[in-house]
Amino acid sequence: MLYREMNTAELKSEYEKLNKEYNDIKAMNLSLNMSRGVPCAEQLEISRSMLDIINSDAECVTVDGQDCRNYGIMDGIPSCKKLMADVMGVTPDMVMVGGNSSLNMMFDTIACFMTASPAEGCAPWYEVKNRKFLCPVPGYDRHFGITEYFGFEMITVPMTENGPDMDVVEELVKDESVKGIWCVPKYSNPQGITYSDETVKRFAKLQPAAKDFKIMWDNAYVIHDLTDEEVSLLNIFDECEKTGNIDLPIEFCSTSKITFPGSGVAAMAASKNNMDIIKNKYKYQTIGFDKINMLRHVRFFGDLDGMKAHMKKHKDILKPRFDLVVNKLKEELEPYGIVSYEVPKGGYFVSVDVMDGTAKKVVAMCKDAGVILTGAGATYPYGKDPKDSNIRVAPTAPSVNDLSKAMDVFTVCAKLCAVEHLLQA
Amino acid sequence: MLYREMNTAELKSEYEKLNKEYNDIKAMNLSLNMSRGVPCAEQLEISRSMLDIINSDAECVTVDGQDCRNYGIMDGIPSCKKLMADVMGVTPDMVMVGGNSSLNMMFDTIACFMTASPAEGCAPWYEVKNRKFLCPVPGYDRHFGITEYFGFEMITVPMTENGPDMDVVEELVKDESVKGIWCVPKYSNPQGITYSDETVKRFAKLQPAAKDFKIMWDNAYVIHDLTDEEVSLLNIFDECEKTGNIDLPIEFCSTSKITFPGSGVAAMAASKNNMDIIKNKYKYQTIGFDKINMLRHVRFFGDLDGMKAHMKKHKDILKPRFDLVVNKLKEELEPYGIVSYEVPKGGYFVSVDVMDGTAKKVVAMCKDAGVILTGAGATYPYGKDPKDSNIRVAPTAPSVNDLSKAMDVFTVCAKLCAVEHLLQA
Repeated sequence: MLYREMNTAELKSEYEKLNKEYNDIKAMNLSLNMSRGVPCAEQLEISRSMLDIINSDAECVTVDGQDCRNYGIMDGIPSCKKLMADVMGVTPDMVMVGGNSSLNMMFDTIACFMTASPAEGCAPWYEVKNRKFLCPVPGYDRHFGITEYFGFEMITVPMTENGPDMDVVEELVKDESVKGIWCVPKYSNPQGITYSDETVKRFAKLQPAAKDFKIMWDNAYVIHDLTDEEVSLLNIFDECEKTGNIDLPIEFCSTSKITFPGSGVAAMAASKNNMDIIKNKYKYQTIGFDKINMLRHVRFFGDLDGMKAHMKKHKDILKPRFDLVVNKLKEELEPYGIVSYEVPKGGYFVSVDVMDGTAKKVVAMCKDAGVILTGAGATYPYGKDPKDSNIRVAPTAPSVNDLSKAMDVFTVCAKLCAVEHLLQA
Repeated sequence: MLYREMNTAELKSEYEKLNKEYNDIKAMNLSLNMSRGVPCAEQLEISRSMLDIINSDAECVTVDGQDCRNYGIMDGIPSCKKLMADVMGVTPDMVMVGGNSSLNMMFDTIACFMTASPAEGCAPWYEVKNRKFLCPVPGYDRHFGITEYFGFEMITVPMTENGPDMDVVEELVKDESVKGIWCVPKYSNPQGITYSDETVKRFAKLQPAAKDFKIMWDNAYVIHDLTDEEVSLLNIFDECEKTGNIDLPIEFCSTSKITFPGSGVAAMAASKNNMDIIKNKYKYQTIGFDKINMLRHVRFFGDLDGMKAHMKKHKDILKPRFDLVVNKLKEELEPYGIVSYEVPKGGYFVSVDVMDGTAKKVVAMCKDAGVILTGAGATYPYGKDPKDSNIRVAPTAPSVNDLSKAMDVFTVCAKLCAVEHLLQA
């Protein structure tokens, strides 16, 4: 029976029952974490043999004769540029390989445009006092963190099942102080939505008032499938080539959730104009990133097919976890009409909307019962979810057994808060 | 006989002789490089076994139970913070371990202060339109590159045998728009000068008009000795503690010239006030740097003593190269009175002053004969050496045999240009 159709007596009875369940759970002194998109121990193990690839017997010389142990090659070794170019579906000349973190490359890119002209005739963003950035919501807290750090006013754009609401985006970019938008175009964080062809085409056709508008295309989950379905995403650069907008997108990806989160390889792709500006910074910033680690990755995978085969192992580990989360939501919350969510086909999260006005309380009660969730509101700029309903569930880190317990806590708390909310209404 | 004491006929005769030598050398079609402080192949080999340290059998867990393969630990694993703290003679709480490049950390530090307040009550440097930075000369071109990139006017400070001329520094810091100074306090680049105790004490006592003045203390050659002598450098933090100026210095170091230049570990040390500002940036910039590589370094060395023992192997490889350069200068150029240089006790360079007004020509002639030197003027901001006399010789990369040939080219060119210069005078 739907909670909203219960009368007060029924709600009170349900509240008593749930409150007892919650207290029983609390007595278990759990310590579980579903807060971040962190790979689990089993996932780390499947890349363990990568650590043998570059040993003391290994030749560390690239095909073109450069010693990877020494200084140099600022934008990455050619074989790794090729591999990451294949991942992103671009040509190697568009690619720069960085350190271990695509987040770092995104931060560096925004930082670059803060103090250097981001496009011909445009002032550095530091000088744009009312600078703004578009943030599809729910979205990734670390994206919002970067633009907040650099003093952008963040304007939310609602997500639809096809990606950001492009009617809204097209309207907002008429403001010249709007300088860019954060996108996770495939298996979006947290909803797992892949942008439709129409969405990508409309991005490619954007005519922002700001000549230095940038689409931050964070392809974090580019090959991170949870099903056997080939979920396709149009290539943003191909589309922008057609529309003459090649300077709009800057794409990012990494192997953080392919090999080791702390020791992967990150890369970015951009037009010549954008790359000229970005590399003109990097050439002062570093002599080159860790090329032994690039070589380690290239030799471990061979090519994109090798990387995709590796991703199937991740899928096999993660699929049961995501199934469990979705089943718990379906069985424990759906019958009461107090939840909505997308079933993700890839990525690292399940985005759960609990009853409006209860998300913060749910997260707090879970915490009191020993289950850490992503902070409520974290999927919104400034941590402010206007409906207080969205919670990002990260099912990857716990064991299946722990995840099951954690989801039991979560569903009890979601129900308890919903009933309490209705009783107070 | 000193060239400047020769008459025109003698000079002409010398010119003919040298010109023939130069043409003979050119006919050899050499291809040698003495341009950058790049370790040679033998030096890379002594760290080869480090590549076996973290293999697929290795536990990648830190002493406090954190998996180095996964996300997290933004400021570095505790054992590596300890090791790098010992290298710099500070406490681990003052240290942040970064990626593979201390240059990157220096760039990031200046970048941070460009857009964030560098000290309480101070505006980000972007807003200081006439911002200036002090540059001891001759110095490191990549330092100058960073401050030029960020639009600082660079003010040169002459080096003395005890470090930067502190009379000049103390005068220049009375200008509030002077925001910092670049220092390589031990075995300076390029002269190999170690700052005297008095110099360090005077740095610690500085009272700059700018409350956000920073001493960029690039301790790049902190344990990079070329002799058995213990060349000591006062600890800048200890001295600044005494004078109440703990927020003045920010120290940097790395293992780039200890293990692998492309895959080392970089670190910085700073006061709590400085570190709070810097970490408040890094927490948006990255989830953490490569911890497997940190662990690899810690396990390879064990501790600072292990690292120092390793440095003796570098010394054994490098000493003959430096001796050769110094001997060539002594034998081939000194007798003619056309050279001055320091004999370095550590570091990576020999700073050579050829006859005033000839450095550019010498470098160009060497290049035509197949020997690449650091560009003349590179040791000065904007590449402008007012006397056109300083050339940085980097003896580490070539084999001893190649180095000998390269120095023969260099000395012939230095002589030829000197004679030519005197003939034109």
